[in-house]
Amino acid sequence: MKRYRNGEIWDYEEQMPVSDAARDVILGLDGGTTSTVCICMPILPFSDPLPHPVPVLARAVAGCSNHNSVGEAAARETLEQVMGEALAKAGSNRSAVRAVCLAVSGVNHPSDQQRILDWLRDIFPSDVRLYVQNDAVAALACGTMGKLHGCVLIAGTGTIAYGFTEDGRNARAAGAGPTLGDWGSGYGIAAQALTAIIRAHDGRGPHTALTSSILEKLGLSSPDELIGWTYADPSWARIAALVPEVVSCAEAGDEVANKILFDSVEELGLSVKAVVQRLDLCGPDGKDSFPLVMVGGVLEANKRWDIGKEVIRCISKDYPGAVPIRPEVEPAVGAALLAWNCLMKESVKEAFKC
Amino acid sequence: MKRYRNGEIWDYEEQMPVSDAARDVILGLDGGTTSTVCICMPILPFSDPLPHPVPVLARAVAGCSNHNSVGEAAARETLEQVMGEALAKAGSNRSAVRAVCLAVSGVNHPSDQQRILDWLRDIFPSDVRLYVQNDAVAALACGTMGKLHGCVLIAGTGTIAYGFTEDGRNARAAGAGPTLGDWGSGYGIAAQALTAIIRAHDGRGPHTALTSSILEKLGLSSPDELIGWTYADPSWARIAALVPEVVSCAEAGDEVANKILFDSVEELGLSVKAVVQRLDLCGPDGKDSFPLVMVGGVLEANKRWDIGKEVIRCISKDYPGAVPIRPEVEPAVGAALLAWNCLMKESVKEAFKC
Repeated sequence: MKRYRNGEIWDYEEQMPVSDAARDVILGLDGGTTSTVCICMPILPFSDPLPHPVPVLARAVAGCSNHNSVGEAAARETLEQVMGEALAKAGSNRSAVRAVCLAVSGVNHPSDQQRILDWLRDIFPSDVRLYVQNDAVAALACGTMGKLHGCVLIAGTGTIAYGFTEDGRNARAAGAGPTLGDWGSGYGIAAQALTAIIRAHDGRGPHTALTSSILEKLGLSSPDELIGWTYADPSWARIAALVPEVVSCAEAGDEVANKILFDSVEELGLSVKAVVQRLDLCGPDGKDSFPLVMVGGVLEANKRWDIGKEVIRCISKDYPGAVPIRPEVEPAVGAALLAWNCLMKESVKEAFKC
Repeated sequence: MKRYRNGEIWDYEEQMPVSDAARDVILGLDGGTTSTVCICMPILPFSDPLPHPVPVLARAVAGCSNHNSVGEAAARETLEQVMGEALAKAGSNRSAVRAVCLAVSGVNHPSDQQRILDWLRDIFPSDVRLYVQNDAVAALACGTMGKLHGCVLIAGTGTIAYGFTEDGRNARAAGAGPTLGDWGSGYGIAAQALTAIIRAHDGRGPHTALTSSILEKLGLSSPDELIGWTYADPSWARIAALVPEVVSCAEAGDEVANKILFDSVEELGLSVKAVVQRLDLCGPDGKDSFPLVMVGGVLEANKRWDIGKEVIRCISKDYPGAVPIRPEVEPAVGAALLAWNCLMKESVKEAFKC
């Protein structure tokens, strides 16, 4: 194994023996745009049904690990640190790791995947199985308990739809950031609301209750001040945090807010439909059932104006076989289950060879 | 006069006497998002018609001076440097300056204006007249030769419509940046084109010739790579630079590109109409004439698909009194003429008092 830059993260390994419970473990990582979660899970027996709840030995949290947002060096350091912490908390270390699944946002191209794989290879012994996926894949897996089949829709600050067929083909829609038109996202909803305020103010659009609601929330006295406010810090999450105001205004009957939410439902539905159609997830008669995993703050509102429910309604009209799932485990557990599933399949293949 | 931070910019003043031609001058500044231009103009006799061309003693150029983009300290330094350079080139210095008009982007609120005025006050003797305006005002003035009346539409990287009545009321529309929905701008057009490529690629939208045209221009091999490309440098100007590709595709008959341009025309027209309506520039019967100054790369295309011409057509339908003007002098000269106009009015007022 080569020496790696943050070697001191692993110093604890020399002082602490591996506990019995942590002799064979899997690491699952979920690297989103705001935080990175790593869980450490024991290897489950392949033959048994999955235990409920899924056993998790330890959990660690760190900051953003999207290399597009924070740069590669910072992303690597964050990922290495959070894995070291999860293993130490579990009373385990790298020698016990059998597989790692790293699901991280910003993996959009095979070259992204390869770069991260190369670097993981520097950290772990050569027999450790390594899987690198877009974070949407872990979100799917946390709804399907590790099985890559169906479609996941994530709508938090950003949005993406990602799907897999049972024979391993995959497709995605959206997930490209606001410049490239992810309009159904939390950022998209809130940016449309801010736009509506400016348009009402300068005479391009109708009056809306969003003006007083959002200005009050932000402590601003005039729509003009929104310009300075957006310039001051263009982070998407800061803007997306205004979604609850849009939902409240829509619930109170504001037409502009309602239109924004209905447009968002249509955009989110369109992303899922594009994936379902390209992968033919609904089968030749259009009625095959497939898991539709729904993840992210925008879909979990559960208020009177329930965006998630409306999206499901919109998709079910075209694809009645969609089976909506709101995951009970977090995406990092999904990543670990995904690694476990892959390990299991590979073992079966090897067994048949013998 | 207080000491100011960049005093050394003015060191030349002690070594160089003011030339005869430069004994009474006006500075006009245009501070956009990419560069800042300062011109030095002699005081023109108030009674005579404006000479053609307008006499300019010197011109200096520096980088961005939008305090929202580069921070206040850098913006101040840039502005001070470019004024010092223009005066030195003209063989003049601060003792000869009668008025300064600084038209700079990022002046969206009276507090922005006051902050910049306070700081100019530190640089110039107390009898120098100082005017601080949004850069759109200089753009209007360069079309009307210093008179604040009518409406200007700027559409370059960003877009804004700004209007004045003859009695000094003013109104604006758009000019709030892409987060707040400046969709008719160069950035808006190009971002919609990039969005259309992603949507065609992932199955959410129709096929478009924009894909091959823009990928080739950027040297990318797949739409997936656009995600990394936009993340790598989110500057609006870099994205807006793709407008010529959109125009070419529209000229070649691509439906998606045509729709983007027509939507942009509608957005730009709407901004102007909102200003005209709020200021009642077209008079009670809707037919009064008013100058409509058209500025910026998006409006100056002059290709077969002429966005500027279409915008004029769109506005003239509702307001037949709009008189389109493509300015012959640059906005910095407009700023100087504006200062000259204000000086003249104030002198007339003072003369009547006596």
